[in-house]
Amino acid sequence: TGPSTPAVMPTIYERTTAAAIAHGAINLGQGFPDTEGPDWLLELAARAITEPETGPRNQYAPGMGLGELREAISAAAARRQQVTLDPESQVMVTTGATEGISASILAFARPGSEVLTFEPHYDSYGACVALAGARLVGVALRGPEFRPDLDAFEAAITERTSMILLNTPHNPTGTVFSTEELTRIVELARKHDLRIMCDEVYEHLVLSDARLAHRSILSIPGAEEVAVAVGSAGKSFSVTGWKIGWITGGAELVSQIRGVKQFLSFSSGPAFQWAVAQGLEDDRGFFAQNTAELEAGRGLLRDGLQELGLAPNRAEAGYFVVGNVSGVTSLSAAAFCRVLAEEVGVAAIPVSALTIQHLAAPTDELEHLVRFAFCKDHATIREGLRRMREHL
Amino acid sequence: TGPSTPAVMPTIYERTTAAAIAHGAINLGQGFPDTEGPDWLLELAARAITEPETGPRNQYAPGMGLGELREAISAAAARRQQVTLDPESQVMVTTGATEGISASILAFARPGSEVLTFEPHYDSYGACVALAGARLVGVALRGPEFRPDLDAFEAAITERTSMILLNTPHNPTGTVFSTEELTRIVELARKHDLRIMCDEVYEHLVLSDARLAHRSILSIPGAEEVAVAVGSAGKSFSVTGWKIGWITGGAELVSQIRGVKQFLSFSSGPAFQWAVAQGLEDDRGFFAQNTAELEAGRGLLRDGLQELGLAPNRAEAGYFVVGNVSGVTSLSAAAFCRVLAEEVGVAAIPVSALTIQHLAAPTDELEHLVRFAFCKDHATIREGLRRMREHL
Ligand SMILES: CSCCC(=O)C(=O)O
Ligand SMILES: CSCCC(=O)C(=O)O
Repeated sequence: TGPSTPAVMPTIYERTTAAAIAHGAINLGQGFPDTEGPDWLLELAARAITEPETGPRNQYAPGMGLGELREAISAAAARRQQVTLDPESQVMVTTGATEGISASILAFARPGSEVLTFEPHYDSYGACVALAGARLVGVALRGPEFRPDLDAFEAAITERTSMILLNTPHNPTGTVFSTEELTRIVELARKHDLRIMCDEVYEHLVLSDARLAHRSILSIPGAEEVAVAVGSAGKSFSVTGWKIGWITGGAELVSQIRGVKQFLSFSSGPAFQWAVAQGLEDDRGFFAQNTAELEAGRGLLRDGLQELGLAPNRAEAGYFVVGNVSGVTSLSAAAFCRVLAEEVGVAAIPVSALTIQHLAAPTDELEHLVRFAFCKDHATIREGLRRMREHL
Repeated sequence: TGPSTPAVMPTIYERTTAAAIAHGAINLGQGFPDTEGPDWLLELAARAITEPETGPRNQYAPGMGLGELREAISAAAARRQQVTLDPESQVMVTTGATEGISASILAFARPGSEVLTFEPHYDSYGACVALAGARLVGVALRGPEFRPDLDAFEAAITERTSMILLNTPHNPTGTVFSTEELTRIVELARKHDLRIMCDEVYEHLVLSDARLAHRSILSIPGAEEVAVAVGSAGKSFSVTGWKIGWITGGAELVSQIRGVKQFLSFSSGPAFQWAVAQGLEDDRGFFAQNTAELEAGRGLLRDGLQELGLAPNRAEAGYFVVGNVSGVTSLSAAAFCRVLAEEVGVAAIPVSALTIQHLAAPTDELEHLVRFAFCKDHATIREGLRRMREHL
C-alpha cells in the first residue's frame, strides 16, 4: 500500500455510530438529524426521478452541476452575504461538502508543504492533507469559548505553508468567526500567497444569538482571489444522505478544483440538485423552523450538561456542544466516551479525536473535552441526559 | 496550485457534450443512454426518499454502503461469476465507479511509482495516477480487434511498477479479456507484488457473441489477494446519474481503499442503494432487454459506419464502437471530430483523447480512430448516420 494511504480505520463518526448500535446507546455522536428533511423537498426529489417532464434526472449531471442549482446558489449568496458570484464559473456542485473539501485540498496543498488550520478540526481535513502528501499544522482555538488566536496563527505561517483550512461556523465548537478575524486571515493569505478553503456547511444553522454575525469568507474584500467557500445542502436542509455540496469562489480557483473533482466522482445527484435548487430559492420557512428546533435542542442539552457539571460551551451554531469532563472524572475524554457508550448507553465523541493531537499526545484541555450532538429529536436528547444523570 | 493538480480542463466527455449542444449535434460522444432506466427501479428510489417505512434513506448511508446492497452485490457475484465475497468486508459501495477508480488508485499507486495499463484507456485513470504522484505507462491493445499483447505488457513491468489498471469489458474498444489473459495478468501481479484495479463497469452489457466469455478478475484463482474489481449500477441499469458503484476484492485491499474513500465523499445515495439492491436481486428481465437493445443499436451503427468506409470494430460489449477514418480522410481523428461536430452535426470522441499519447504525439493507428456511442435511441443513431452520409 502507498505511503500516502491514511490510517485504515473507519472514521470516528462511523466507529461511534457502530458502537452506539452495538451497545443500544443513544447516538449523540455522529452529526446527522434523526428527522428526514422537509416533506416538500423529498417530494421534489422523488418527482425528479420518476417524472421525466422535469428534465432527464437519472443520467450524469453536468460536471459543474445543474444550471438551476448554480443560479440558486449564486442568488442565495447575493441575498444572504452580498456576494456576487457568476453561476457559470464561480459555483461548482460537489458530492457533498466532503468532496468540496477533499478536492480543494488535493488541488491546493502542495506535496511537501504545510497546511494550517485551527484545532480541533473536522477529521477529513487531516486525512486529505496526508493524501496530498502535505503536513497539517494546527493552532488551538482558545477555550472556554474557543476563539481564534490570530497572533499564534500568524506565527505558525512558514515558507512551506501552502494553504489554510477554515471552518465557520465551526465544528465541533460552534464558534462563528468575526468579520475582523476573517479579514485578518484573508490579509495573511494574500500576503503569503496562500489558498484558503473555508468550510461553511453550517451557514444556515447559525442560532439566534449569533445569526447576524456570520459572514462568508467570500464577503471579505479581496477574498475571492485566494479563497473558496464550501456549502452543504445536507446540513442546510437536513438531508445529509443526499450528498449535495458546493464550492464557490474566484473562477480560477474553482476551475483548478474542478480539475481534481471531475476525476474523484465526476458529478452526482441530478434529481437532488434539482430539488435543492428550488429549496434554496424558497425554503418555505424551513431554515427558521429548523434553527428554532436546533436552538431548543441546544438549550435542553446545555442545561442538562450544566447540571451534570460538564460546563458546556455556548455553541453559537451547528449541531454540537462541547462539554468538559475534568470536573466530574479523572478519566480522559476518550476513556470517558468509552464508558459512556458501553455502560451509560450514550454515544459522544472525544474532541481529541478531532485534532492532530490524536497523532501525538493530547494537550491538557483537549484531553477533557467531549462533543455532544443536539441535532436529534428532543425525546432522544432527554433520554440521553436521563441515562447520564442516572450514572454520573 | 499544487504540482499534483491535473490539467485544468473539463473532461473530454464534458467538452464533447458541450460542443454537441453548442452545434445542435447528435451526441454519439459521451457514454450515457438517452432513456431513463427501468420505471420500476425509478419508483423504488422515489419511494425510498418519500416513504420512511422503507428505512431512513435521506441521511448518511453507512460508509461501506447499505447492508442490503452489499448482500445483493455478493449474491450476484456468486451467481454470475462463482465468486464468494463476504458482504461485510469484501464489498464497498462507492460514489459511482469513478470514485471506485479514484480511491483505488490513490490507495495503491505509490508516489514516484509507475502504473501500467492498456491503451486506449478511460480518461480518469491518467488523471488519478497523476494526482497520486505516479506515472502512467501504457501498452497498446493491438488492432483491428484490440487484443492485449501480454509479452509487451510483461516487458513494461519495471522495479518501479506498483499497480496495474485493467478494464474488461473495455472502453472504448469493447474488448472482453479472456480467462487466459486475465490469468496471466494475475500471475504477473502476484510475482511482482503489484495491485490490480479491474474496471468491470460494463459487466452487464456484454453483447451476445461474447456473453459467455466475460470473466471477472476475481474469478481467477489467487486474484483476491492482489486485485479489486469495480462495478457500476449506473451502467448496469441505465441510471448513470445515480452514481452508485462498488469495489469488491480481498478484505484487506477493500479496507485500504476505504481508508481513502471515506474522506473523498464519505458515503452517498442511500435511497439509490436501496433500489439497486432490489434490482440486482431481481432485474425483472432488464439486463436481457437492455443488451438486446444495445445489440440492435450496435448493429445499426456498425452497418452505417461500414457503409461509410469507417471500418468499425466488432465491439463485443459496452456502449461504443471504434471506427478508423484513415480510409476516408487525411485529417487526424481529432480534427475529423471537430469537423464532424461543427459541420456535420455529429459529436464523437477521438480515441487519441483516451490515451497517454495525448500528452505527446499520437501514434499512427491511434491518430485515426474515432469512438461512437451506440447507447442512444435508434432514431438518434439513424439521424447521426444520415448526417454523416450526407456530408462524407
Ligand atoms: C460525514 S459523517 C460526520 C458528520 C459530521 O459532520 C460530524 O459528526 O461532525
Ligand atoms: C463520466 S462521463 C463518461 C462516460 C463514459 O463512460 C464514457 O463516455 O466513456
